[in-house]
Amino acid sequence: MFIKANAIQLTTLQSNLRSQRRLSPMCIALTVSSFFSANLVAQTVTLSSPNQHIQISLSDDTGRAEYKIDFHGKTIIEPSRLGLVFQSIGELGQGLRIKSSHITSTDDKWQQPWGEQEWIKDQHNQLSVVLTDGKIDLNLEFNAFDDGIGFRYHLAEQAALPVDTPLSITDELTEFNIGQSNKATAWWIPSRGWNRYEYLYRTSALNQVDRAHTPFTFRLADGTHLSIHEAALVNFASMTLDQQRDGKLKADLTPWSDGIRVKTQAGFYTPWRTIQIADKATGLLNSHLILNLNEPNKLGDVSWIKPGKYVGIWWGMHLNKNTWGSGPKHGATTSETKRYMDFAAKYHFDGVLVEGWNQGWDGDWFHNGDQFSFTKAYDDFDLPAITAYGAKKGVRLIGHHETAGSVTHYRKQMADAFILYEKHGVTQVKTGYVADGGQIKRFDENGIMRHEWHDGQFMVGEYLYNVTEAAKHHISINTHEPIKDTGLRRTYPNWISREGARGQEYNAWGSPPNSPEHTAMLPFTRMLAGPMDFTPGIFDLAPKGLDAENRVQTTLMKQLALYVVLYSPIQMAADLPRNYQKHLDAFQFIRDVPTDWYQSIALAGEVGDYVVFARQAKDQKDWYLGALTDETARKVTVKLDFLDPHKRYQAQIYRDGAKADWKTNPYDYVIETKEVSAKDSLNLALASSSGTAIRFKVL
Amino acid sequence: MFIKANAIQLTTLQSNLRSQRRLSPMCIALTVSSFFSANLVAQTVTLSSPNQHIQISLSDDTGRAEYKIDFHGKTIIEPSRLGLVFQSIGELGQGLRIKSSHITSTDDKWQQPWGEQEWIKDQHNQLSVVLTDGKIDLNLEFNAFDDGIGFRYHLAEQAALPVDTPLSITDELTEFNIGQSNKATAWWIPSRGWNRYEYLYRTSALNQVDRAHTPFTFRLADGTHLSIHEAALVNFASMTLDQQRDGKLKADLTPWSDGIRVKTQAGFYTPWRTIQIADKATGLLNSHLILNLNEPNKLGDVSWIKPGKYVGIWWGMHLNKNTWGSGPKHGATTSETKRYMDFAAKYHFDGVLVEGWNQGWDGDWFHNGDQFSFTKAYDDFDLPAITAYGAKKGVRLIGHHETAGSVTHYRKQMADAFILYEKHGVTQVKTGYVADGGQIKRFDENGIMRHEWHDGQFMVGEYLYNVTEAAKHHISINTHEPIKDTGLRRTYPNWISREGARGQEYNAWGSPPNSPEHTAMLPFTRMLAGPMDFTPGIFDLAPKGLDAENRVQTTLMKQLALYVVLYSPIQMAADLPRNYQKHLDAFQFIRDVPTDWYQSIALAGEVGDYVVFARQAKDQKDWYLGALTDETARKVTVKLDFLDPHKRYQAQIYRDGAKADWKTNPYDYVIETKEVSAKDSLNLALASSSGTAIRFKVL
Repeated sequence: MFIKANAIQLTTLQSNLRSQRRLSPMCIALTVSSFFSANLVAQTVTLSSPNQHIQISLSDDTGRAEYKIDFHGKTIIEPSRLGLVFQSIGELGQGLRIKSSHITSTDDKWQQPWGEQEWIKDQHNQLSVVLTDGKIDLNLEFNAFDDGIGFRYHLAEQAALPVDTPLSITDELTEFNIGQSNKATAWWIPSRGWNRYEYLYRTSALNQVDRAHTPFTFRLADGTHLSIHEAALVNFASMTLDQQRDGKLKADLTPWSDGIRVKTQAGFYTPWRTIQIADKATGLLNSHLILNLNEPNKLGDVSWIKPGKYVGIWWGMHLNKNTWGSGPKHGATTSETKRYMDFAAKYHFDGVLVEGWNQGWDGDWFHNGDQFSFTKAYDDFDLPAITAYGAKKGVRLIGHHETAGSVTHYRKQMADAFILYEKHGVTQVKTGYVADGGQIKRFDENGIMRHEWHDGQFMVGEYLYNVTEAAKHHISINTHEPIKDTGLRRTYPNWISREGARGQEYNAWGSPPNSPEHTAMLPFTRMLAGPMDFTPGIFDLAPKGLDAENRVQTTLMKQLALYVVLYSPIQMAADLPRNYQKHLDAFQFIRDVPTDWYQSIALAGEVGDYVVFARQAKDQKDWYLGALTDETARKVTVKLDFLDPHKRYQAQIYRDGAKADWKTNPYDYVIETKEVSAKDSLNLALASSSGTAIRFKVL
Repeated sequence: MFIKANAIQLTTLQSNLRSQRRLSPMCIALTVSSFFSANLVAQTVTLSSPNQHIQISLSDDTGRAEYKIDFHGKTIIEPSRLGLVFQSIGELGQGLRIKSSHITSTDDKWQQPWGEQEWIKDQHNQLSVVLTDGKIDLNLEFNAFDDGIGFRYHLAEQAALPVDTPLSITDELTEFNIGQSNKATAWWIPSRGWNRYEYLYRTSALNQVDRAHTPFTFRLADGTHLSIHEAALVNFASMTLDQQRDGKLKADLTPWSDGIRVKTQAGFYTPWRTIQIADKATGLLNSHLILNLNEPNKLGDVSWIKPGKYVGIWWGMHLNKNTWGSGPKHGATTSETKRYMDFAAKYHFDGVLVEGWNQGWDGDWFHNGDQFSFTKAYDDFDLPAITAYGAKKGVRLIGHHETAGSVTHYRKQMADAFILYEKHGVTQVKTGYVADGGQIKRFDENGIMRHEWHDGQFMVGEYLYNVTEAAKHHISINTHEPIKDTGLRRTYPNWISREGARGQEYNAWGSPPNSPEHTAMLPFTRMLAGPMDFTPGIFDLAPKGLDAENRVQTTLMKQLALYVVLYSPIQMAADLPRNYQKHLDAFQFIRDVPTDWYQSIALAGEVGDYVVFARQAKDQKDWYLGALTDETARKVTVKLDFLDPHKRYQAQIYRDGAKADWKTNPYDYVIETKEVSAKDSLNLALASSSGTAIRFKVL
């Protein structure tokens, strides 16, 4: 009624102004909307997390809608702008006022078919707000959990924007206003870089960040840890962060080749913009915020999706011992694959990945992905014979589709490629999009070549298309050079893993290789997004010698710890089989460790320094622990109170010897056993760039 | 004839392919163009500088056009891509082949109405090339000078692109492939930053650069110094540089708010992409490459454009002693301006700048430039009375137009504002565009608000419009928060100076203030583009105390040296007049030093470390020398062989005392005289963050 009365007043005002003939239509529009907005009383609405520690306040008393976040009563995100900019209608931002709001609560739990945790608690309060600038309504939804918040925009169909009105988004105005940013520390990788997500993490004051990818993790002066990311990135551009004045970070959407950020229509939802919040670093790890903001499983029966472990014809190429392409050193041959399958069968690995099986790897594939065939194998790779051999041995071939970023070319063959794999019992495929940032190659509807970003809206759609097409054939997808993970494995559980950071391969040829701190950084940054196919488990750490630049900058024990620390439902034993033969005692841990869990707990750690994880096997019996450190040797005392208090366990401990050091003595390790219970503690002594791996076997 | 014969063959091929009905139109187009290109023999054309030390090679033997640069027979720019991408026609890049080329030579000299040098030598060789991808011809022009090179694209009107065909550029493919980039050192500021060009320069390995503005200066391992920039930036977006793999830098054009980079039409020329090349750092300073690539003066008689020195009501506001806005501390009052005019008249300064004279400074002008009036003064500022007073004293009022980035608003008043100033004898205006990067506010033809970058195509046009409109009123423009200088002062000599870097004001309130190395960095970076209104000459170096964060991080002598080191045809004595009264002996140098020169020579220096300039007054009598250093104290021996060998001079030396130190003892200075001739040398002892200023007065 309030609104209706004003509408009548506005009509009168509008005709009065027009009759004066002195104001332009634009001025009338502005006058009308300011009049309208001015009649909305300034409001603040607040939303608390279930435990009340987090409070979101949405306010329009500055004449525009801003949100802020308090934690334990202290403001941690200062008043921050909201809004979007459209090519046709201009800016929805300045002048947005709160029109209406309501709050609901959820207290639920749901089950994952695979993951770090089987049962996920979803307890949150939701604030739904309608904002308006007098002409257009813009909805906002805020969800407050105990471990952080998420919010998203929804531009509903309305009178001014009927169903299917096309909309081009040219900017997003969302800010994250950190405040005291010179005293906050951030760990970040640069966005819009030629090397996509594959950078070593930088540590700096927050106000020294230029532009960054998410997850974007930082720590305030008082120790509060936060991480900005997004959930459910579907049909939208990826959000990166750009530094503004005074510690404000602003959302920067990755553009299409024509410069537009997002091509959508009235009725759209943005992805959730998320902020994990915790008292300490491990609080970021013990969180399911991203998954809880994703839609439930859309694939129905997913019993065909299998976690597991694999080996593969892969590392040899990175070491330059083999080639992807044809010739005397071709890695992907029938006989070599059978040899790997024998090894896999003997040691109970589920699959063998083979790269270089298909025609197209000869010549300059990096610059010409159009030469790949996804259905024709090289002459020395007999796909039917290999998969039949594997079937007899209980080992599956893992497929490989490298696109080199030629995605139109891949799309044309995709259906046939999946049909071929399905026919031969290949149920898991590793895909690749090797191309520099901004160099994905597609042909548009007019046949014009365009170059896109891996994380622009086009590729967001293309990656998901690949996953949903694969699902039709009961195939799971492990995406390399991917879009960042935003939790879509909940909705599409066949999206089982991805790369999206510097992985093990950089230790073969990277300049520099991964640093000692890299895998102590990943859990608090990249891994907050979801599982990573890091491919751990290199046992010949320095093929060119301990002093070589190109080597694995860890001890052997750290390689074991990675199986627990860096979660993935599929884990590779990445090295050449013969190198495992040399350390079968250590290899036993890899043979034992599961890749699917009932529950997981991060017990201790600091960003980029060290981390300790404990995870319980799906059958709720054994526990596993992984601890690792950066270049600093550390002693960490771990209480075993996560163990079942009614049980006793044999702790099978894989740890450093007294002289272990990644640089000079990376193979000095001790394997010992010890009977323990939940009442015990263990003192872990981690050498420089080393780790400890423990299996707690129920007695 | 070669081409004609092939056209016949192509028509036949095309109809054969279509009759097969198996190829899509796109495939036919690709096939036709590859056939056509394949019939052009791979070519390399080379162009040398007049002294042959620099050689440009343009080659298409990789199947696309690439250029490389050799210096003294050694490759310094590795093969680098060329090309442009258009929304409608796609990429002109891959597949570009050389169709024809020819070379011409120029040996000329031309005269500047004002500058660092009166007569400029223009000696260069030019290579004009027509490239083609079989459908469209793209022209390239390379100019090779002894001090560097420039090249630009020209997309001529042609059958496929008739006159006025609109074209939207979505990307530029130009690369600068440095090679050995981990061994090259770069000095740079980040592009697309919120603080525009106002960053302290970063020193890093070249491969650690993320995205950078130009001038972009770097040094190769062998000591060769280069600087990448552009000349004659007109009706185009600014070029910034983005890091690619392996030391390649790629052109990145600043976008419009809708994402398009450049809106143009068939027949356009790009600005010149320039690379200064020198054996040593001072070689970059003794270069006129940028000016030589600009168009000659378009304004005709420019005798109304006057170099000079000024004081102003400005620093007091930055120190918070005065306000721009109205009230008891209002700086811009009639009586205060007259006081400044008295001071200017007494000490022979040409002008008095007054900021805060006009209505609109009250309230939040930073966020609302629409509140400024450019024609209505505050009640306590009597413009006619002041300018009449000044006229009697031979001192001009310098005007001020602060827009706060509200450029549509400014444009509406611009004509009236210039008419008002012209009427009152104001012949020089300082403009301002204070707004964060990407926050210029304009209203488009439909009245929709858009936000643009200061260095996007829109503002490139807006700044030039301001200058050409001012010229109609015989007004010179000093632009603050400008587009970077690209030498357009040659074409529009009333564009007398600009800011475009961190200036003196940061020493009042900057966090941090300018560092000791900042003004040793500027000559090799920012100043390669053109003059800067740095506003030197602060004599009260530490108003809040020597230990305060906010203070000028130099000695007094360095402030004098700045008048010679940082060239500008207009130089401010920036401090409050009373602070000059305290050091009238040192002030004498500021009174004496000219701002217009017959010739200039950089005698010595290294980037970010130290620099020594010698400049000769326009009447070819006296010389002036300025030397300054960063935080490192240095001794520099300077040969005076630049002096006229037939004359004797009294060297009036303003130098450090024995205990001078910027932190603790910045006022320890000695003024002495000495008779010298061209045969002599002087040993300059520069204290930490200090300098020496010398007038060589003809005897």
